[in-house]
Amino acid sequence: RKLLMYHDAWSGWLCVLLVGLSAGVIAAVIDIGTNWIIHLRNGICLNAFWLNREQCCWASKKLNYDRFNTEECGEWFTWPQVFGDYRTGAFEYILSYFMFILWSVIFATFAVLLVKVFAPYACGSGIPEIKTILGGFIIRGYLGKWTLLIKSIGMMCATSAGLILGKEGPFVHIACCCGNIFSYLFPKYGRNEAKKREILSAAAAAGVSVAFGAPIGGVLFSLEEISYYFPYKTLWRSFFCAMVGALVVRSINPYGNGHDIQFSIDYSVPWASFELIPFILLGILGGLWGAFFIKTNVWWCRFRKNTRLGQYTITEVVCLALVTAIICYPNPYTRMSMPELIKRLVSQCKVEDSIDLCDYSREPISSAKIKVPAALAGEGVHRAMWELFFALIVQILLVTFTIGVKVPAGLIIPSMSIGAITGRIIGVITEQLALQNPNFILFKHECNKADENCVTPGLYAIVGACAFLGGVSKMTVSLVVIMFELTGGLTYIVPLMAAAMTAKWIGDGFIRGGIYDAHIELNGYPFLDNKEEFNFTTTANDVMRPRPEQSSSLAYLTQNGMTFSEVDSILKHTTHTSYPVVVSKDQPYIVGQIQRRDLQILLKSQKTQHFIASSYYIQFTAPSDSSTSPNLDSDLQDEQRLTTSQPEIIRVGNLLDQAPIIITDQTPMETVIDMFRKLGLRQAFITHNGRLRGIITKKDVLRHMQQMASHSPDAFYDT
Amino acid sequence: RKLLMYHDAWSGWLCVLLVGLSAGVIAAVIDIGTNWIIHLRNGICLNAFWLNREQCCWASKKLNYDRFNTEECGEWFTWPQVFGDYRTGAFEYILSYFMFILWSVIFATFAVLLVKVFAPYACGSGIPEIKTILGGFIIRGYLGKWTLLIKSIGMMCATSAGLILGKEGPFVHIACCCGNIFSYLFPKYGRNEAKKREILSAAAAAGVSVAFGAPIGGVLFSLEEISYYFPYKTLWRSFFCAMVGALVVRSINPYGNGHDIQFSIDYSVPWASFELIPFILLGILGGLWGAFFIKTNVWWCRFRKNTRLGQYTITEVVCLALVTAIICYPNPYTRMSMPELIKRLVSQCKVEDSIDLCDYSREPISSAKIKVPAALAGEGVHRAMWELFFALIVQILLVTFTIGVKVPAGLIIPSMSIGAITGRIIGVITEQLALQNPNFILFKHECNKADENCVTPGLYAIVGACAFLGGVSKMTVSLVVIMFELTGGLTYIVPLMAAAMTAKWIGDGFIRGGIYDAHIELNGYPFLDNKEEFNFTTTANDVMRPRPEQSSSLAYLTQNGMTFSEVDSILKHTTHTSYPVVVSKDQPYIVGQIQRRDLQILLKSQKTQHFIASSYYIQFTAPSDSSTSPNLDSDLQDEQRLTTSQPEIIRVGNLLDQAPIIITDQTPMETVIDMFRKLGLRQAFITHNGRLRGIITKKDVLRHMQQMASHSPDAFYDT
Repeated sequence: RKLLMYHDAWSGWLCVLLVGLSAGVIAAVIDIGTNWIIHLRNGICLNAFWLNREQCCWASKKLNYDRFNTEECGEWFTWPQVFGDYRTGAFEYILSYFMFILWSVIFATFAVLLVKVFAPYACGSGIPEIKTILGGFIIRGYLGKWTLLIKSIGMMCATSAGLILGKEGPFVHIACCCGNIFSYLFPKYGRNEAKKREILSAAAAAGVSVAFGAPIGGVLFSLEEISYYFPYKTLWRSFFCAMVGALVVRSINPYGNGHDIQFSIDYSVPWASFELIPFILLGILGGLWGAFFIKTNVWWCRFRKNTRLGQYTITEVVCLALVTAIICYPNPYTRMSMPELIKRLVSQCKVEDSIDLCDYSREPISSAKIKVPAALAGEGVHRAMWELFFALIVQILLVTFTIGVKVPAGLIIPSMSIGAITGRIIGVITEQLALQNPNFILFKHECNKADENCVTPGLYAIVGACAFLGGVSKMTVSLVVIMFELTGGLTYIVPLMAAAMTAKWIGDGFIRGGIYDAHIELNGYPFLDNKEEFNFTTTANDVMRPRPEQSSSLAYLTQNGMTFSEVDSILKHTTHTSYPVVVSKDQPYIVGQIQRRDLQILLKSQKTQHFIASSYYIQFTAPSDSSTSPNLDSDLQDEQRLTTSQPEIIRVGNLLDQAPIIITDQTPMETVIDMFRKLGLRQAFITHNGRLRGIITKKDVLRHMQQMASHSPDAFYDT
Repeated sequence: RKLLMYHDAWSGWLCVLLVGLSAGVIAAVIDIGTNWIIHLRNGICLNAFWLNREQCCWASKKLNYDRFNTEECGEWFTWPQVFGDYRTGAFEYILSYFMFILWSVIFATFAVLLVKVFAPYACGSGIPEIKTILGGFIIRGYLGKWTLLIKSIGMMCATSAGLILGKEGPFVHIACCCGNIFSYLFPKYGRNEAKKREILSAAAAAGVSVAFGAPIGGVLFSLEEISYYFPYKTLWRSFFCAMVGALVVRSINPYGNGHDIQFSIDYSVPWASFELIPFILLGILGGLWGAFFIKTNVWWCRFRKNTRLGQYTITEVVCLALVTAIICYPNPYTRMSMPELIKRLVSQCKVEDSIDLCDYSREPISSAKIKVPAALAGEGVHRAMWELFFALIVQILLVTFTIGVKVPAGLIIPSMSIGAITGRIIGVITEQLALQNPNFILFKHECNKADENCVTPGLYAIVGACAFLGGVSKMTVSLVVIMFELTGGLTYIVPLMAAAMTAKWIGDGFIRGGIYDAHIELNGYPFLDNKEEFNFTTTANDVMRPRPEQSSSLAYLTQNGMTFSEVDSILKHTTHTSYPVVVSKDQPYIVGQIQRRDLQILLKSQKTQHFIASSYYIQFTAPSDSSTSPNLDSDLQDEQRLTTSQPEIIRVGNLLDQAPIIITDQTPMETVIDMFRKLGLRQAFITHNGRLRGIITKKDVLRHMQQMASHSPDAFYDT
């Protein structure tokens, strides 16, 4: 028995350990797989086709770098080379272009077919649904084995197809699937939805942790963005789970770069205080982008839902992949994958770098000198700026139409990519301004060392990524911590904070809540957001149903005076999930509540057991010993015994839930909402002087909150 | 009006900004002050007495280091030098010893007098009280101006007196005082206790942030350990507040070392997996230490409280300072301040280091070589180990009697110091074991590089500090994050986690909750811990008062049928803070509740207004328009008008709170406790079929939880 108790205590830890391990392994496999498939669009490692370009070239000693700093080597064959050893010329370009488009369309088709045929729940990022599930709503099969498998494979294909989407958001869904599956190994968690949600919260933290290698950020993300109810115990378990996941990814080392910080930065100069101006500008742009994206994307998703377009999901994805591939190939910055682009944008230019982005007109200096002197932008930088600007336009347009199609798709990486491009552009502008106006009041004090560059455009890319992601997701602390774990830059926490804060404030001025909340609303999930404040003076009396001004009355059962046929007719005429039981018609004092499902079973049993007539009375009175659990079978046996002595009364007291939530009709709605949120209620009965007056359900609360919010749109300034 | 609304929205941010700024400035001032005062015990900078030893020696070019690596220079005079230029010999030692003791006693006396005379609330760490305050209890004056001032000054003196206590815990109290004071500038926060608690949560985060330079750790500490209710909005504000505080401290730079990581580490080798064994051993020791310390300290505090010792607070502190100074002077590791000791213990030995701790018998090598080769411990290390061992014993004994005396005293730094000593000792043992048994199965794979040391004893000191602090405080995530921000070692998060986890589990096996919870219980504060689980099947019926088996009945008021004299007699015979109002004696259905305070005002007004006889009836019925706020004065005017027409009834419906919390008697106590915790209830009325049966107050809940927990001590395994 003691052993069992220990097992009970440890099962939670064991479960999150398994979740962390599996999430880590799956994430590493997906990373490795994506890295291989994505390079197939350009070429193949002929000697060993299972190697990606980087690994293929490891074996080779002869390494060349092209204009965009990607490896080229003898073992790696581009498609034109495979088909006929074309190395230059228009035909080579067209063939490459064609193969690029072909592979993109094939991958996209494969992804959408997988989702459509095997697991329709695998589409999207899954974060809105997981928020809803953690808020107490149950979506059967959403976190199942098939979803896990199809989402993993589909994600590799969708990312490799070059669609403007990320695989970081879906990792949260995948980790939650692991959490759900493993929780069935432990009856304590598998059988209890509330307990299972604790595991899911931890799994969500692990999802972010494996996506970004950010365990602390993951926990905070789960706490801030995803989890509805985050008790103390969950915090520590989540941290453990996230840690295990990050360790597994790190030891498998899918990126092959030996360190776990994805966009590791190491700038030679600290940030100067005048730079806060462009950082805040980036925050403003991020907020505007967030508002624009949420509005446009929701409008397009609604359009898709309500028109015939919604029926052509496969065609839509294929066309999108085709268009994306055609548009993206010519521009080197859209041709490369988004994480690669971000990595390049955040990096600092070294003296020996020869890529476009770092083509400054420097005097030839020995590369032994570590400090990078300030220099005017060369031709390459100008070209790169234009290309980046077009990449920006392309990504903004495409991502709006991509998020919401029926493939696994996250928007964290696209947002960061768009932000990083904007940031880099603004960074280069600031850099050149500071260089050309050294005596301007802002720059004079902090930028007057002639031999050193005081503006690092890479930092602007990081800050831009943070601001744009913040504008879309409206995350705050978790965003800053994720960015800082992602880059390893504890020193740059202030610029990141300033940008995230500005983005949230500006964004909130246009639209409330982030993209996830917008999609929850779009899909009509019953989710009671615990972030919004309710500042109105309405009371329960104003919200409860039936409305006092209406003539209809609430359906209720009386303790002793209902026959089977009366209950039957109530069930037929109403659709409530739960009915109040009162003392009698004249004394509407609440005794308890009873589930519709239990009543249905009861009525069915009456119909199969013919010795119970439909005119028999049902007695809902509680049994004297209330500790026995409700059990219909034994209860019916009781009834059979009872029927011999009192032929006309059936006692079903065990079905009665004697602990309903009761609220007086004069309670302010602020308190009522607080109770619904914190206690996770689905309904509450409203009384006046003890007499049953009506009922408030979660949907009533949601509707009322929306009504009040739409009447006074300014109410959110307090958030 | 729009402007006002904006002001309302921004006031929260402005308030936490001010709190962060002031907490940062105060912390920096205290750090600088302490640093100066503490060196006064050894000597003085004769040319500029306001400089501490370090600053004094900056000016000097001639720097020597003594055996313990402390600076010596011409400008800095030890007391024997001041009094007669004694530099060596027995007399010099005795004179130094005497001055050390004298100054220690003076500082301690000053600290305890300040606290005793001006602000009795300034003693201790303040964290238990702040937890209680954030849990909904009000302690008037606890967060006042005087407490702030006296605690700041007292803390400098107490720390400088060499008492075994830290100043990091009290920083939380100081920051909360700032929070309380600034919240009065903003009516929205100053006038609403619930809103003010949001500011206090943020202030607590800033307190930890300025103490350790750990903003993220501070937020998590506030979330995990201190705050009772931590809504989303508070998270972001706390982060902002903590960040501002950390920035201010960093820019004032009180340590003068130019970087914000206090115990910055930079070890040359990563940790090996076999090292997890000593790390877990440290965790076990930490857990044991925590249990031992909590039990002994609580026993001693209780002894002090219940005996005549409690009256001699000043004598106690002075004696303690005397004993501490006498014992601590001879041992160099107890003579130096604890932060200095920890800093030394966590640092890695370099080849050129000549202090005792680093006296390895190495072959003479050029210091250009960076890697430190493994070497046998020399005589100095052996001596250092013995001295550290005695320092350990001394600190363990002294800290147990020190925590709880009437001076500002935190126990974070003492715990860390004890842990760091233990860790360093175990680290050196492991190092020597690995060196002497290179072929032992554990060491063979990871320790076979002959020219490199695979065990870094400094890391063990960090892990030990984490484990021992974890054992005492039972913190988890926040502890690991604070340690990692304190050391800058993102790589060592796994050892830290393993140690913190083991310490918590072992500690929980002996005693539930941390030292703060123990002190809350010791002082009998009404604090309903939201971390404990309640796994019993009792119902509200088992807890409510009056007990059904007792004959006494609940005091209640009826809606219409009470005269002034009846109400008066009820008030005289009972002491409840709130009374239920029911329909009538035969129909005990709850209409609302009324505060004792309001009833007292009502009765007083009756006594002053002679035209109301005490036989008049009071009518508690709610007015038809319930939106008007309760206002006694206007109500009494109403009454005056009423008295003319219906001379015998006084209507006071506006005093009635029509939204009491009602719970049915069959509700499981688990749900009831959940409601008390999450809704912050103080009482709830218990009904059966709508009829009032009894009342449950917060104290009833606490008593019931304690009763149930003491009956089955195994119930905590689930936490």
